[in-house]
Amino acid sequence: MCGLDAALRVVGGKWKPLILFFLGDGPKRYGALKRCVRGVSDKMLIQQLKELEAHHIVLRTDHQEIPPRVDYALTPFGESLVGALRPLCMWGEANTETIAEALDETGKA
Amino acid sequence: MCGLDAALRVVGGKWKPLILFFLGDGPKRYGALKRCVRGVSDKMLIQQLKELEAHHIVLRTDHQEIPPRVDYALTPFGESLVGALRPLCMWGEANTETIAEALDETGKA
Repeated sequence: MCGLDAALRVVGGKWKPLILFFLGDGPKRYGALKRCVRGVSDKMLIQQLKELEAHHIVLRTDHQEIPPRVDYALTPFGESLVGALRPLCMWGEANTETIAEALDETGKA
Repeated sequence: MCGLDAALRVVGGKWKPLILFFLGDGPKRYGALKRCVRGVSDKMLIQQLKELEAHHIVLRTDHQEIPPRVDYALTPFGESLVGALRPLCMWGEANTETIAEALDETGKA
């Protein structure tokens, strides 16, 4: 498995990079995460979080409180992955206009 | 559009990062690229290349020769994107075993 292929196995797809990006700011409860990752369905977000948890990238903690408090946080492994994603995020920020123009041209904005 | 969201609009999905990664070594003809990106179908590779071309990330050049010679190369914009993907590639390389174990556990190897 080449490096990028391996990385994409655990972070590929449309939603996982965004979920990790927002968890990069610190632990979040499900509702807060759902509001951050605009457009994701409950079914998709739950499935992606389960996979990220199974791959030891995200840790789900049930704080055993009443009312119940459950949150999701990056593991150290997850934090190293977010670090590797940051340059892509900065590239996107630096090129947002060029990307928006390209997407407009292809009607994919 | 946040930076990562913007970047994922043009490089999201399973195949584009791999296509860009292999074009990072230099221009390639279609057949060579198909052999590099294992498992991709002709239909998918053609579609992804068309999108990458429309987004000014890849340049398709028909060298107007007999027999025909057509190749695909990164534009400067594409090269800057591949640069931003490299850390993710290095992260994957550094963590290939951990990833393989995690994928084994979830039967997704």
